[in-house]
Amino acid sequence: MVSAESIYIGSELFSDPSLLLSHVLGPQALIVTNETVAQFYLKDLQRALQLLQCDVVILPDGECHKNQDSLALIYDELIEKKHHRDTTLIALGGGVIGDITGFAAATYQRGVAYIQCPTTLLAQIDASIGGKTAINHPKGKNMMGCFHQPQAVFMDLSTLDTLPEREFRAGLAEMIKYAILVGGDFLKDLTTFLEEGLKSSALLASLIAESVQIKLSFVKQDEREQGHRALLNLGHTFAHALEAYTDYKRWLHGEAVAIGLMCAARLSKHGTQDLEYLIDLAGLPKCIPSDIHLEQLIPFFFNDKKIKNNQLRFVLIRSFGDCFLSSDVSREELRITFEKF
Amino acid sequence: MVSAESIYIGSELFSDPSLLLSHVLGPQALIVTNETVAQFYLKDLQRALQLLQCDVVILPDGECHKNQDSLALIYDELIEKKHHRDTTLIALGGGVIGDITGFAAATYQRGVAYIQCPTTLLAQIDASIGGKTAINHPKGKNMMGCFHQPQAVFMDLSTLDTLPEREFRAGLAEMIKYAILVGGDFLKDLTTFLEEGLKSSALLASLIAESVQIKLSFVKQDEREQGHRALLNLGHTFAHALEAYTDYKRWLHGEAVAIGLMCAARLSKHGTQDLEYLIDLAGLPKCIPSDIHLEQLIPFFFNDKKIKNNQLRFVLIRSFGDCFLSSDVSREELRITFEKF
Repeated sequence: MVSAESIYIGSELFSDPSLLLSHVLGPQALIVTNETVAQFYLKDLQRALQLLQCDVVILPDGECHKNQDSLALIYDELIEKKHHRDTTLIALGGGVIGDITGFAAATYQRGVAYIQCPTTLLAQIDASIGGKTAINHPKGKNMMGCFHQPQAVFMDLSTLDTLPEREFRAGLAEMIKYAILVGGDFLKDLTTFLEEGLKSSALLASLIAESVQIKLSFVKQDEREQGHRALLNLGHTFAHALEAYTDYKRWLHGEAVAIGLMCAARLSKHGTQDLEYLIDLAGLPKCIPSDIHLEQLIPFFFNDKKIKNNQLRFVLIRSFGDCFLSSDVSREELRITFEKF
Repeated sequence: MVSAESIYIGSELFSDPSLLLSHVLGPQALIVTNETVAQFYLKDLQRALQLLQCDVVILPDGECHKNQDSLALIYDELIEKKHHRDTTLIALGGGVIGDITGFAAATYQRGVAYIQCPTTLLAQIDASIGGKTAINHPKGKNMMGCFHQPQAVFMDLSTLDTLPEREFRAGLAEMIKYAILVGGDFLKDLTTFLEEGLKSSALLASLIAESVQIKLSFVKQDEREQGHRALLNLGHTFAHALEAYTDYKRWLHGEAVAIGLMCAARLSKHGTQDLEYLIDLAGLPKCIPSDIHLEQLIPFFFNDKKIKNNQLRFVLIRSFGDCFLSSDVSREELRITFEKF
């Protein structure tokens, strides 16, 4: 697993070539980014890596491009430019870029190194940590992927200054998820941050650092998601079904997670009001829109990766700070949960 | 790594459901095979697995189909039939089927179990052992893949009875490679088998069992091919370039390896005559045909996975039983090697 020591949280990190270069082990690098992020940070990163053979792939922006076609573009560039097994891939962007770059790194020549440079709140506190890589299938989110740990994670908090507000709010959904999982001071601090209108950048920095620690603590116990790590999927069975159903185009991942958290709370019959309060403060969606046909949505649940012996398993809330994995949810209970929306 | 205890070498193995089922851990299985092998063994295997949800993907036959399109067919079937993380993929066929099925297993839902049922000599003695999985790229062989160990390997030697002679001879190329790598009794026994016109099935069975042990001994020391395992690539830098250059259509992999071994011997300036004797006995090709443009072939070498710090590395022969990895081969030496053909 990437050690806490290889996770750098700071500002202007991309302008320090020595730090970045100390984690690039060979003479070649490939930066993968998207057209939105490229205009802000690509040049800085290229400058930092100018002593290497440094190639670039710029993908279109959006969850709907986290697919086989984008992956093929990365492979083609790696092969075209003769990248070898000692190359390093560098993911510059949000969770989509991180996941797809990580998957390319896991599979190119049976595995090369990669570095995460997450530029969204969601990628910083969640997607860039823990070594999960993936692409989507039209019928299911993250259906193809590998566990493959990055060499290092460079979290430049100044990238949040250029992040669109909608993207920032989407990241808060994963923070709310952590707050439900661990409760206590983290929940209190996050509530304060939300109640104060997202204004305190000092509080934000500490919430990010704590989020990273929470994620690491779950992953450390269970890197391959045999059990405990699955709790991090709170709200995600719903979110993934909603995303696949809408062709990954309607919501940012974090927005779908916000709706998914509300579903999980309703299914758990616990914490709905407290959660709704946080989600409202974060300005995130909380309902399944009425144009979604629940009968057509339900089959998407049966692509969930937590299924075991043909049983759906959900993360349920006993209380904030105490969640658990349950295979004891019937189709009928699911239907009732949805009907309440 | 797959333990030697999970490698079964025998006959009529597919008709023993209990043995096979003891290595299938969940309620679902997907058999991947090709149209040639399916007509002989698919029904046996389906019968053995009839207590499970058992789906089937039948791919077209041939190295040129070890690609992204075939992989997508496997993913589609897995998702369509709602296979979960506790499914088991079963590769029934030669090296192409084994490599692609293993890669699908390595990446579906971030990794599921798989079983190798190799039905060609080459797959039995080489491809099914060691956990290398891959697909080809138009510009380079095995460019995308993972290390992912099978749960078990079922080597049914009676499948060799239905193997076309050309396929059988192709498998002998990898046996000749092992003989060069280890020398000694194995080289002697193989020579006897070849000199006697491939007739002794008892000798063949023992050569297969020994080949598996040789492969295991290399892999055990170096599962991720950081060094020692790379010796198994003797002849393969040439073979892979020739295969990619001819769109994976002209030769069986073993045939390209035979030519590659001759190239390696010439480049090593050792053993050319002894090797030629064995390759002739095996009825395998030993020359690069004159319609291959060497200038156009050379760029394919620079996609080789053993390249480090932009240096090509070749496995060279000091003597039979003593090979080594060298990064000391110039383009000029390569050219001279080719010109001798």
